[in-house]
Amino acid sequence: MKLFKSILLFLSVITTLSTNSQTDEDVLKTIYTQSLTNGKSYEWLNHLSNQIGSRLSGSLGAEKAVTYAKSELEKLGLDKVWLQPVMVPRWVRGTKEYAFIESELGKTNTVNICALGGSVATPALGIKANVVEVKSFEALETLGKENIKGKIVFYNRPMQAGLIRTHDAYNACVDQYYKGALEAAKYGAIAVILRSMNFRLDDLPHTGSMSYGDLPINKRIPSAAISTNDAELLSTMLKLNKDVKFFFKQSCKQLKDVQSYNVIGEIKGSQFPNEYIIVGGHLDSWDLGDGSHDDGAGVVQSMDVLRLLKESGIKPKRSIRVVLFMNKENGLRGAEKYAKEAKKRGENHVFALESDAGGFTPRGFSFTCNDKNFNQVLGWKDLFEPYLIHYFEKGSSGANINLLKTENNILAGLRPDSQRYFDYHHASNDTFDAVNKRELELGTATMTALVYLFDKYGVHAK
Amino acid sequence: MKLFKSILLFLSVITTLSTNSQTDEDVLKTIYTQSLTNGKSYEWLNHLSNQIGSRLSGSLGAEKAVTYAKSELEKLGLDKVWLQPVMVPRWVRGTKEYAFIESELGKTNTVNICALGGSVATPALGIKANVVEVKSFEALETLGKENIKGKIVFYNRPMQAGLIRTHDAYNACVDQYYKGALEAAKYGAIAVILRSMNFRLDDLPHTGSMSYGDLPINKRIPSAAISTNDAELLSTMLKLNKDVKFFFKQSCKQLKDVQSYNVIGEIKGSQFPNEYIIVGGHLDSWDLGDGSHDDGAGVVQSMDVLRLLKESGIKPKRSIRVVLFMNKENGLRGAEKYAKEAKKRGENHVFALESDAGGFTPRGFSFTCNDKNFNQVLGWKDLFEPYLIHYFEKGSSGANINLLKTENNILAGLRPDSQRYFDYHHASNDTFDAVNKRELELGTATMTALVYLFDKYGVHAK
Repeated sequence: MKLFKSILLFLSVITTLSTNSQTDEDVLKTIYTQSLTNGKSYEWLNHLSNQIGSRLSGSLGAEKAVTYAKSELEKLGLDKVWLQPVMVPRWVRGTKEYAFIESELGKTNTVNICALGGSVATPALGIKANVVEVKSFEALETLGKENIKGKIVFYNRPMQAGLIRTHDAYNACVDQYYKGALEAAKYGAIAVILRSMNFRLDDLPHTGSMSYGDLPINKRIPSAAISTNDAELLSTMLKLNKDVKFFFKQSCKQLKDVQSYNVIGEIKGSQFPNEYIIVGGHLDSWDLGDGSHDDGAGVVQSMDVLRLLKESGIKPKRSIRVVLFMNKENGLRGAEKYAKEAKKRGENHVFALESDAGGFTPRGFSFTCNDKNFNQVLGWKDLFEPYLIHYFEKGSSGANINLLKTENNILAGLRPDSQRYFDYHHASNDTFDAVNKRELELGTATMTALVYLFDKYGVHAK
Repeated sequence: MKLFKSILLFLSVITTLSTNSQTDEDVLKTIYTQSLTNGKSYEWLNHLSNQIGSRLSGSLGAEKAVTYAKSELEKLGLDKVWLQPVMVPRWVRGTKEYAFIESELGKTNTVNICALGGSVATPALGIKANVVEVKSFEALETLGKENIKGKIVFYNRPMQAGLIRTHDAYNACVDQYYKGALEAAKYGAIAVILRSMNFRLDDLPHTGSMSYGDLPINKRIPSAAISTNDAELLSTMLKLNKDVKFFFKQSCKQLKDVQSYNVIGEIKGSQFPNEYIIVGGHLDSWDLGDGSHDDGAGVVQSMDVLRLLKESGIKPKRSIRVVLFMNKENGLRGAEKYAKEAKKRGENHVFALESDAGGFTPRGFSFTCNDKNFNQVLGWKDLFEPYLIHYFEKGSSGANINLLKTENNILAGLRPDSQRYFDYHHASNDTFDAVNKRELELGTATMTALVYLFDKYGVHAK
């Protein structure tokens, strides 16, 4: 290993000396090779997932993750590493939730359930009521108060398996999660349960964010997700017997906001220090798994982008920042704080890239930009072909960075293969073993390559 | 479910009636939607993997798989389903192998080991000897007989992590497996052990095929693979102490050839019945896992291609066959037999497609054909873009079908994402749980779409 490390060091020195005469093809090859043979992202993820674990905003895990990320960035010899304070919501799950379906008195089936983030608790002894199954908010209106009042609304619109891009299927269902309680409360429902957003039939409930909007506190009703297998079971049982009752108990609550931080590291640009290129992911995660894909992967990839630039001997012309956002999952406070501060300081963010779609094989990027800028990007597509990166499309970049949009800058989201993402998303199996080292490292390299190109060529003015 | 099935049936009838007026875009959409919402491949794979299990040529599993595949194909209402007899080698692993590293007398580390397919056994009491580590056949020559005679040769050339296409890394190492024993025997080695072909560091030995070439039976030496973790350990221990000994015991043997079968199903072409389009995978597997990726996936995908064509109301102009080859892993007898019979009967195989690279997200195809034919194929590339299929390259198609090559026909191999393939390849973890339903079904749809296009447009003559 010692000899191997010496060789790598030697190669790294060689690279440093010769970067200026290298073609972009050469530099990308160095970046990919370094990432796959000498990457740090997997090791960092191992620590984040297995030593720290879940990192819900305001939790001890989130606090530890802030300290860890800062200390690791400090080891990289960046020009600056700092914490950006931000107040974040603190929601706690409390005692593990419990639920069952009661087909007749004394005959029950236990159900896998989890509260949605932001939900209120049930009464201490739980809620038991009849169930009304719907697939849309329109169905609530059709049913009306007379059929809903005093019951539990069961949202059971499944993700559409026929859609190729799994996020499209997610987006077509997530309103049930986010607004389900708010909408059902209007008709007098006493609680809502939801089919987990997962294509697979399995036993894992998937949590997620929900909001009561302006609903007064005394009108707020508990909201929880059940596994897809349990959703199928409940639906079948309801077809056989409308009098089936559902019981669940959860003790989650919203505590006072607490102090937390975005973690930021920077390499100062040698020619255009006020042109900022940022790369990031979110440091917080849901609490059920350890957030390895969502978004431990994006965090360690973003950290490794700056390390790889340095290792590859690239001296950025523009200022390159890694930004690890706090509180993406249930508040977006970190993203808001970062954008506000950047604006206040007049920092010109020419390009921002996020990785928040899992640590799977990268397929390309989604770009938020004008046509002229997009054409600039398309000009680089061939450089990525040898790495099997083909997907360059206009579209949304991501929630961590979209507040940074200006007329002429470019935002982008890494687009990994999305087929397995919702097997793990916000569930207890989003753990380190679900991440493949090579897939993660290919993502890191792909991000680094794009950052390198934007740094070298800048963003063309309109 | 009943209502759902009726709707599907209705949709299927509608499709049948209107196929002729549909654009290719429409047909591909139907194919992908059907595969993702109403596919059979995952269910078939579940049976093949979990009810039948491993299917090494000549084993009971292989025999059961032949019977099962035939009976399932018969349910599809194809024009013809039959078994094509072929004699296959029968190698059996015997008692589970056992190995240890002995650093000093009485101080041992157990090692995860498996015989390579085709290897001879060790003596009944095992082999214990000093070890000489090499990374190439050239190193054997440099060391010479004086340093090798009476020892165990340890091939420890790792797969190169820096290569993007993992099969390139595999191809750069597989000579150690295939010819390692033959080459080492020339220098008087008494056995060979090999580093498993796996990028990951883990505890699983990966088997594979090996050959003694013309080596007389009494000169044949045992050959076995050890896990990557064990290879690292052994290498480190050898650096500390050259006198480390390695012990292993295996009782595998080659029995007499036995009768087996390729399984074939056919839809007869309505306009050009003697133009054949075939799609296939191999029904046999190695014996350590249950062969879910290699090549259960290819088998069930190929079967489902014909089912999807029928379900989508496509009436092929050309004869479409599914061919499930026997004995790809250790002999290729099924492929040879099929090619020989096809030639004898003057069947014009215009296009052959195999799936034998795992049931992962499909990225595209590798085509073996002339430039003119390749241009024809490139003309269809845009049709596949909505399904994130971007990879259309010239290259090798695959061992199951390459004997079918003629001057003007086209062979193709499905190219799924390859990053995770060697985590499972020929190891005990190549099991059903490692296959994602959507990824498998996207592969099926991608194959079906290409078969549909070749059937509709034929292969352009030179």
